[in-house]
Amino acid sequence: MILTVTLNAALDITYRVRELRPHGTHRVSEVTERPGGKGLNVARVLAVLGHEVTVTGFTGGATGRVVQEQLAGTPGVLDALVPVSGATRRTTAVVDELTGDTTQLNEPGPTVTSAEWSAFQEAYRSLLGGVSAVALCGSLPPGVPVGAYAGLVRTARAAGVPVLLDTSGEPLRRGVAARPDIVKPNADELAELTGSHDPLRATQDARRRGARTVVASLGARGLLAATPEGTWHATPPARVHGNPTGAGDSAVAGLLSGLVERLPWPDRLARAVALSAATVLAPAAGEFDRAAYEELLGRVAVTGDATAA
Amino acid sequence: MILTVTLNAALDITYRVRELRPHGTHRVSEVTERPGGKGLNVARVLAVLGHEVTVTGFTGGATGRVVQEQLAGTPGVLDALVPVSGATRRTTAVVDELTGDTTQLNEPGPTVTSAEWSAFQEAYRSLLGGVSAVALCGSLPPGVPVGAYAGLVRTARAAGVPVLLDTSGEPLRRGVAARPDIVKPNADELAELTGSHDPLRATQDARRRGARTVVASLGARGLLAATPEGTWHATPPARVHGNPTGAGDSAVAGLLSGLVERLPWPDRLARAVALSAATVLAPAAGEFDRAAYEELLGRVAVTGDATAA
Repeated sequence: MILTVTLNAALDITYRVRELRPHGTHRVSEVTERPGGKGLNVARVLAVLGHEVTVTGFTGGATGRVVQEQLAGTPGVLDALVPVSGATRRTTAVVDELTGDTTQLNEPGPTVTSAEWSAFQEAYRSLLGGVSAVALCGSLPPGVPVGAYAGLVRTARAAGVPVLLDTSGEPLRRGVAARPDIVKPNADELAELTGSHDPLRATQDARRRGARTVVASLGARGLLAATPEGTWHATPPARVHGNPTGAGDSAVAGLLSGLVERLPWPDRLARAVALSAATVLAPAAGEFDRAAYEELLGRVAVTGDATAA
Repeated sequence: MILTVTLNAALDITYRVRELRPHGTHRVSEVTERPGGKGLNVARVLAVLGHEVTVTGFTGGATGRVVQEQLAGTPGVLDALVPVSGATRRTTAVVDELTGDTTQLNEPGPTVTSAEWSAFQEAYRSLLGGVSAVALCGSLPPGVPVGAYAGLVRTARAAGVPVLLDTSGEPLRRGVAARPDIVKPNADELAELTGSHDPLRATQDARRRGARTVVASLGARGLLAATPEGTWHATPPARVHGNPTGAGDSAVAGLLSGLVERLPWPDRLARAVALSAATVLAPAAGEFDRAAYEELLGRVAVTGDATAA
């Protein structure tokens, strides 16, 4: 069992409109809704890969009920979200039919009280007892302390559970200092953390700040991993065109599944890159194209060496 | 008791963003939600004016539950919405903090089955037994026949209940032919119905098509009413600046309350114009500024004559 934590879970709404014109009135031609927030996306991909996943974080209000109803219909995903009095946020993607471009509107999320935050920490500690890995994903809702992930990393380490952290800004900075097993920043997040725009230098720097392994996602250039066993660069066979929404979450699912299956790093990275590319190629945002994944998997190039780190 | 019908009720969501940029990602700084759809807006204004109102139409899904929870907290408004399997639509207004301009995203609404439409008609017939007037408001959700309002007008007339119709397009054209007591088109709706852009000629034409009274809302130029007792033009004392959302619904509330209080037409029109202007002036969309309403009421100019019609 893998655990994913999504402190700012969301109801992801996708609207299709002919063309978004500021200050105009638009008829939405198609509405879709699904559970969102990075950790829930990661869980969905893990479940498709055949892993059992428990999801936790917060849920509240009418939007939270919709998220939970949909999770109940997702095979392989167990709902352990903790109730809060505020409402789960909506994240709305408005897709232009003319251009395919997307405009994103993200609500801030519920304000979490200190009692609710304490209840979550207790639930989290108890969930750690039965899992082989945990991923801490995404932004923090209002009210949750900025050092939240640092605390959750320490709790996981104390419980002997490998922990992956995927967040940004100050929560990432503090989380890294708590010595997580893996962090997966993108290029911007890594530059913000380290001050360096050189990915190789920045991944090494992030390791010195406390992360055991740093896997930087470099968009079309694939993944760069600095690990205790070596440094590798995994690149997709060709530039893929499509919707990059959720590609980073699929990469996290690849890394986590590879971790619990004890794959060597090059194989984990190949899986993560192939899943990520197959997510860009899928017609629905955040889904992945299974056939494309399997085809891509053998064609990911992994370079590097096991003594470089 | 007054009855308002909102076949395509909505959860009105207002987002504040710094500036809406197509294809950008936006953090929403403020989220508000309230029951929406013209008939629910009319009901809220009537309740503030001291009238008891029953609201009907359709409700479904998580959004419908939020609408009903909020209606339960609205004094003077009785919820008689009819459940459907689809979800109540969301209508989202995205307000630019920089300019104050609004971008509107409107979902189509639930698809209503013929069994649900039959259940509604039965509920409507039974509600008509206890009311002194009924307003039929807004667009039709998918699945409801285009002649729906014509049928509801005839049912009200057969029950001896005065009926006001506020819709547009083909549902208005068919509804007018069923001889409602009042229709309240705006200038565009009236021109579409009659083919004439001359408001006086068009209101007379709409009466010939079947409406007993036509009250045309002409925006800043106030209301033009063609009635069996005469023709009047009511104008606000000065051009008001603000958010016109809901101004037409407040005018309908003014006309309905004046009808059940048996006010003479000039007084009904003055009330409707003052409520409408006080709605434009209110900071929150669709609310009205009570003090402004009372101050404006005595200053609305009503011209016309009781023998012209």
